[in-house]
Amino acid sequence: MSILDQASEFFHRLQDQITEGLEFLERSEDVADSLKKRNPAAFHQDLWSHKESSGLITDGGGRTRILSEGRIIEKGGVNVSDVSGRFPADFSSTMPGTGRNFRAAGISLVLHPYSPQIPTVHANFRFIARFHDDGSPDCFWFGGGADLTPYILYEEDAVHFHKTWKNACDLHPDVANYDKFKSHCDEYFYLKHRQECRGIGGIFYDYLKEDSFESPRAAELLAFTKTAGSSFLDAYLPVAKKRSLEPFTEQQKNFQLIRRGRYVEFNLVYDRGTVFGLKTGGRIESILMSLPLHVSWVYDYQPAGGQESGLIEVLKKPRNWL
Amino acid sequence: MSILDQASEFFHRLQDQITEGLEFLERSEDVADSLKKRNPAAFHQDLWSHKESSGLITDGGGRTRILSEGRIIEKGGVNVSDVSGRFPADFSSTMPGTGRNFRAAGISLVLHPYSPQIPTVHANFRFIARFHDDGSPDCFWFGGGADLTPYILYEEDAVHFHKTWKNACDLHPDVANYDKFKSHCDEYFYLKHRQECRGIGGIFYDYLKEDSFESPRAAELLAFTKTAGSSFLDAYLPVAKKRSLEPFTEQQKNFQLIRRGRYVEFNLVYDRGTVFGLKTGGRIESILMSLPLHVSWVYDYQPAGGQESGLIEVLKKPRNWL
Repeated sequence: MSILDQASEFFHRLQDQITEGLEFLERSEDVADSLKKRNPAAFHQDLWSHKESSGLITDGGGRTRILSEGRIIEKGGVNVSDVSGRFPADFSSTMPGTGRNFRAAGISLVLHPYSPQIPTVHANFRFIARFHDDGSPDCFWFGGGADLTPYILYEEDAVHFHKTWKNACDLHPDVANYDKFKSHCDEYFYLKHRQECRGIGGIFYDYLKEDSFESPRAAELLAFTKTAGSSFLDAYLPVAKKRSLEPFTEQQKNFQLIRRGRYVEFNLVYDRGTVFGLKTGGRIESILMSLPLHVSWVYDYQPAGGQESGLIEVLKKPRNWL
Repeated sequence: MSILDQASEFFHRLQDQITEGLEFLERSEDVADSLKKRNPAAFHQDLWSHKESSGLITDGGGRTRILSEGRIIEKGGVNVSDVSGRFPADFSSTMPGTGRNFRAAGISLVLHPYSPQIPTVHANFRFIARFHDDGSPDCFWFGGGADLTPYILYEEDAVHFHKTWKNACDLHPDVANYDKFKSHCDEYFYLKHRQECRGIGGIFYDYLKEDSFESPRAAELLAFTKTAGSSFLDAYLPVAKKRSLEPFTEQQKNFQLIRRGRYVEFNLVYDRGTVFGLKTGGRIESILMSLPLHVSWVYDYQPAGGQESGLIEVLKKPRNWL
């Protein structure tokens, strides 16, 4: 099986693993009282084919899984897709390689919990491969990462999250570098107009590129992708589980709704994947599943001191957690 | 007084007029029961100076007026500003004229009513003037318009709104053309990724340009700007007043929150003023006052037939209301 097929198969299996893990979390009985009133929910699946997208994509499709109004997760999506098509000339030159035909596959997830005690999380793992007109391979690269957006900051959670990703990187020193990927994450998930990061970061990497589809390095890139993808539940579930026990106030819930506005601002103004998807005719509902169910924009909101101000201080100046 | 000073003075007076008109509306006693529970609110004013913005603006400032959690208006902003600065070379060439120094003044408003029976409205009226390095005038242009975003469509309201703007244009046939401005509005307030208009339109115009600051045409451009600006309350208040009497269902309120998501998508992804402001360091809170207080994004929401589907049909295919 080609490295691309192996990666695609991994992304699909990972989607099963992650949605099962999250559904298990949904069924927690041992949660704060305010969550006990909510019913556990399961993922709903939408299969879609390239015919639903207009744009560059001419083959393939995806499997969108959405969980709505659950006990723990208010809105979450875990999507895989494996599509192919042809790059237009202007877009083609903005990326490595020259072959105009592409295949792109990956898994992408965003989870917005109901409780402000539980952080929002985003992760994705993907490849893009380019092929010449005669069908011969040109090059491919992996990209991905995961980042955490808390509304109430627990330092031990930030440390656990980062530690998990550092461990994943350390297993593949030839292709992965936690320090570099951590900095890249802080730089990427930055709202220039707010002069603050979206959250407390994690790792973000792109263009882990190889020309040969069969080299030892290609195999190592795949291995790192698998290690990283498989680390997601380790990084997030223990945090979500622990924080689902904590009660919260209306003030904290309100602050979460306002902070979610920043999440929307980032995704619609800066996120390359979202903006590219919207402008080139991807499947809208799969792209915008990343937006929270309920969001507020309050004019000139001033953080209410204490925890709120402390969080914002950290967002303004990314910390080294390890 | 120069034509620019006259325009700026008009924008400031218009802000007073509009905020007074809206506060009068807020004090309505004759409203639906669900609105009677809400307390009338007044505008809160923030004066800001160029020192609060970080980009091209080096002088001047503005007067931001925000109304929050009122009886009729859940969140509304009516801003005026009069600023000057210097265009960077790359930006300079994207607009008419060559002088690198600019002065820009205008009024900009967005009102998000609480009741889904009352449409959201946006309007702005502005000029940009360019000056050479020696201070001599290069050229100026007026731009602006107003558009209505209903959540429940009343055809008579759409007709009244459009009729008001047609009348304003018809008074100034040498510089204004309703049919052209109406089409421009439908084209501009269009969400390409949703393949629908933001609302039922109105008028939108830009680059009503003149080189001479003292010509009869310059005076006529100012006269049209005044007629248009003064038409805002005529266009909107009767609609808001009438619809504030109508009760509404939870389903209608929910649909409003979802439709507001499209409003946010338009403003953050497509609106030139918003995107430009965010990326060049304008005053964030004044720029983003256009975003509603409460917004929802529901995965793959399907309109519940009847009124909802009827509205969307109109948004997909702009109608001639007159």
